[in-house]
This record gives sequence, C-alpha cells and structure tokens, in this order.
Amino acid sequence: MSYIAMNRFKIRPGREDDFESIWRNRESHLSELPGFREFRLLKGPQTEEFSLYSSHVVWDSHADFDAWTKSEQFRASHRNAGKREGESPIMGHPQFEGFETVLHEA
Amino acid sequence: MSYIAMNRFKIRPGREDDFESIWRNRESHLSELPGFREFRLLKGPQTEEFSLYSSHVVWDSHADFDAWTKSEQFRASHRNAGKREGESPIMGHPQFEGFETVLHEA
Repeated sequence: MSYIAMNRFKIRPGREDDFESIWRNRESHLSELPGFREFRLLKGPQTEEFSLYSSHVVWDSHADFDAWTKSEQFRASHRNAGKREGESPIMGHPQFEGFETVLHEA
Repeated sequence: MSYIAMNRFKIRPGREDDFESIWRNRESHLSELPGFREFRLLKGPQTEEFSLYSSHVVWDSHADFDAWTKSEQFRASHRNAGKREGESPIMGHPQFEGFETVLHEA
C-alpha cells in the first residue's frame, strides 16, 4: 500500500502567484527516484489570514519516501529553500504530515 | 485539472480498528459517478489525544464533486452516519477541505 507525504503551507494573502511560481520553476527530480508515483501541488481554502496549499507526494512505501529524504536529489531541491530575497510568501514553517494508505479504490 | 475532496477525522485512541471497519464494510458507489478517479482512506500521525485519518476523493473537477453531493448515492452513503450505537470512534465533526490541483507530475 502506498505512502503519502504531505506538507501544508500557509501563504500570505496576495502572494499566491509568487508561491506557485517557485513550484512551477523548480527543477523536479522526483521521477528519478525509486517508488515515486505522483506529485501534486494543491490549492485549498482561503481565509482572511492566509491561503492554504498542500503538496502531496505518493510513494510506493514509507521506505521509498525515507530513501528520498536521504538522497542527493533531496539535498539539491532544498538547497535554496529560505535563501530567496525579500519576505517569503510562506507564513512560518510548512507542516509535514505522513499518511499510510488503508483503503484504495480507483 | 483535478479536484480533491478531503475530510480529516480525529479518532479516539484505541478506536482505530472500529473506524477502519466502518469504511471497509461500507458499500461504496463512488465508481458509479461521472468524474470519479480515485478514493483513499489514509492513516496519519498519532498523538496522545487522537489518531488522525484523512479521506481523499479525486474528481476530474469541482463540478463532478458538486454533482456527487447532490446525488442519490451521496444520500444513501450518509443515511446511517451518526446512527450507530455507542460512542462514535470519531471525536467531533470531520473537517472538510477541498483542493484544486495546481501542478501534477506522475
């Protein structure tokens, strides 16, 4: 059964396009990794304080996710995080949540 | 681009199997509906207070999700909700969050 690694991001109002651009313009190396199935960047509900986004990466197993976090691709993709100029579109830190698939229908 | 309807559930410690059984034993009619792609029941992080679960339904569009909420299948699947005997394994109400897909890699 698959494992889904999610991060929840609170984005400052008006900075949604900046946040999406960071993702659109990044070099993704996920598909090079064993066990990678699917990636999604998702836009969720908006409040006066922030817009909620969530990133989902579906892996074959928790072990595949774990191997990714120890890979050169992971280090490369996080090298520039937090180094951009000006105020970040992200409020605080992203909130990580890992999920095991219990049931699946498709 | 796809739309994902999520519900977050806080489950009382020790009642995880009861909660999973409700899902395993339900009659699912999702695959009868236009625009249905995928369903997942996911088990997330556990704290002393609760175990977090999340249900994900991937639809072709928000309109397909919306049509489902107005369908006979939706009414049938929610008919028995909250009518079971004894204390529910779910603490409070599930928290709904809908997400539009911004980026997708597979």
